[in-house]
Amino acid sequence: MALIVQKYGGTSVGSVERIQSVARKVKTVHDSGGQVVVVVSAMSGETNRLIGLAHAIQPRPTPRELDVLLSTGEQVTIALLTMALEETGCPARSYTGGQVHILTDSAHNKARIRDIDGARVRADLDAGRVVVVAGFQGVDAEGNITTLGRGGSDTTAVAMAAALQADECQIYTDVDGVYTTDPRIEPRARRLDRITFEEMLEMASLGSKVLQIRAVEFAGKYNVPLRVLSSFEEGPGTLITFEEDAMEQARISGIAFNRDEAKLTIRGVPDQPGVAHKIVGPVADANIEVDMIVQNIAADTTTDFTFTVNRSDYPHALEILRRTADELGAREVLGDDGIVKISLVGVGMRSHSGIASRMFAALAAEGINIQMISTSEIKISVVVAEKYLELGVRALHEAFSLAA
Amino acid sequence: MALIVQKYGGTSVGSVERIQSVARKVKTVHDSGGQVVVVVSAMSGETNRLIGLAHAIQPRPTPRELDVLLSTGEQVTIALLTMALEETGCPARSYTGGQVHILTDSAHNKARIRDIDGARVRADLDAGRVVVVAGFQGVDAEGNITTLGRGGSDTTAVAMAAALQADECQIYTDVDGVYTTDPRIEPRARRLDRITFEEMLEMASLGSKVLQIRAVEFAGKYNVPLRVLSSFEEGPGTLITFEEDAMEQARISGIAFNRDEAKLTIRGVPDQPGVAHKIVGPVADANIEVDMIVQNIAADTTTDFTFTVNRSDYPHALEILRRTADELGAREVLGDDGIVKISLVGVGMRSHSGIASRMFAALAAEGINIQMISTSEIKISVVVAEKYLELGVRALHEAFSLAA
Repeated sequence: MALIVQKYGGTSVGSVERIQSVARKVKTVHDSGGQVVVVVSAMSGETNRLIGLAHAIQPRPTPRELDVLLSTGEQVTIALLTMALEETGCPARSYTGGQVHILTDSAHNKARIRDIDGARVRADLDAGRVVVVAGFQGVDAEGNITTLGRGGSDTTAVAMAAALQADECQIYTDVDGVYTTDPRIEPRARRLDRITFEEMLEMASLGSKVLQIRAVEFAGKYNVPLRVLSSFEEGPGTLITFEEDAMEQARISGIAFNRDEAKLTIRGVPDQPGVAHKIVGPVADANIEVDMIVQNIAADTTTDFTFTVNRSDYPHALEILRRTADELGAREVLGDDGIVKISLVGVGMRSHSGIASRMFAALAAEGINIQMISTSEIKISVVVAEKYLELGVRALHEAFSLAA
Repeated sequence: MALIVQKYGGTSVGSVERIQSVARKVKTVHDSGGQVVVVVSAMSGETNRLIGLAHAIQPRPTPRELDVLLSTGEQVTIALLTMALEETGCPARSYTGGQVHILTDSAHNKARIRDIDGARVRADLDAGRVVVVAGFQGVDAEGNITTLGRGGSDTTAVAMAAALQADECQIYTDVDGVYTTDPRIEPRARRLDRITFEEMLEMASLGSKVLQIRAVEFAGKYNVPLRVLSSFEEGPGTLITFEEDAMEQARISGIAFNRDEAKLTIRGVPDQPGVAHKIVGPVADANIEVDMIVQNIAADTTTDFTFTVNRSDYPHALEILRRTADELGAREVLGDDGIVKISLVGVGMRSHSGIASRMFAALAAEGINIQMISTSEIKISVVVAEKYLELGVRALHEAFSLAA
């Protein structure tokens, strides 16, 4: 008997009618003999309504109390979905994060799951019930309510699937799978039947926001087969696997991109051990996340150092870097927040240097100048001027024959 | 250092502004050195909104899931009030019913409190924090969320006060105390400074809906001094005490009444042991609550038997009584749903027969015919035709000099 964990996001449970439609979907699996655990988010709009109330009272809400407030959103959904299931004649029971002991650390608003006690859920499943669990929330060791941060319901679903050793974790969303690139930019983008966890991580972190990145990491760590499907149309979706089939052959999965980048360069830094830390350290201390880092080999006794940050952090990072430059006696600081990052994601590309050169050639053929390059096991990223985003994505999609 | 439990109902926390106003009130007590536990209801309108969602999905919502749903209402309020307190610089912490182990039985939608573990609350109070607790809700022994039924927040407050041995339990509401009668009927009605628990029970059960009757019973049982005050204006309110001062002297507290009555009479029943049970039994079995019961002494071998029920149960009760009459060979069944009950409530009236005769004389002077009479230790109730309600209440208010 297959055990499936299904997760439905806010849009999928955004109204009474949609909740009833989810109930019918779940009942189909239950009626065919499957065991189902359903993880749900708050109804769309509800979390924002609650945050609005909080902000009307406290400009910076007390984190512990914000969690008490926000966790009610999912609690409403679990009750309504369970009622809808019962109404269709499908026995069901709801649980809050606390009730199924989704134990987290105490980092309110962005807690991390430490453990789940699956015993209670398993007992219900064995009794023939569908179990409906509130996503996004847990409790810390002292019993305080915590939340996992926005999008955390994906993580709850994966953690639940891991704890129960489910056969599959299905994430229902408003797209029908993972695409070779954003269909709004390249209409010929193709849905992938499968993608590896590592590729999905790169796609997710690069702005293909189908799945929360922590959920993907979690799934990879616990070997949970993950599938992305549409709540609104039938279809197999995209399976995210941990098997790397066809290891020997390079396979390009897709083109990811990120518009929200800005780059900063510090030039003429004395080339000494520890200098990288002196440059990146103060930026990290200001809670600014650094993405790409490129350091060229030293010319004579000095070197140049470039990194990218989220565009919203650009002014602050620039200010910090100017101070650092003074301290280090660097020649100058340059910055540009009119850039984007485009990445080719795929398994086995490192051992196939031909891929990188094909990528660079495709961009050159369109007259697109590459400003930065960085590579990993499964991705090659380039930074280009913002205006080339669409052109670059389409050129690469074409060059690697990704079209449907 | 005084320990006060304060309870604010849905109207008192019905908007962001009102929540902020409650926070200022609580802070005043905290700043003057008092320890405060605040029990709150859902924001007014919220419970109805949630019930509307439930009914859109399930005409008769699964009781367990309805409790999961409704308990979110108070959870929203505790978070917002705690934020408001923190924002005024008053350290505070919120708890759901489950978090402070308000243990109830498993009767969903109408659970009864069995136990409260005050240790966690006490630790917060000792650390100088205000504790904000969700009213109306608890958990059963299996950790399922339960609710106490509408108005249950009063009961939570009293139970909390009992568990913590609080010095006073203050119920903030939209009236400024308990009155000698309904001011909408007798404008000269006067606020009582104090009233005994027994009198309050009679007033509450007779339709003076200031306090939930279970809360009053609870307070009496655990000797919790209870005070009813207004959220919106300053004033001492009404203290509900367990001391019966001036025991020897009869004291009339007020005139209560109940419009929702109907009476049924079965005539010519054989006067045999067990006949009362044969008449009332089937009515009770149909879940119809019987209020006053009057049986006159038998004339020859038969007797007459009259009782009152809630007006909404009248048609059903009449149908049942007709069947009973057939079975018992009674002469006839009579009914009247155009009646009201008016009651004089006060301590020590039984030993002062003069009070009853003064009551009857006052009604007779206005030409009001008394249809039924029943008496208890602290109340004399009469049933009269509905049209005499206002006249009767005013006549009695005058006769016993209750006016302000």
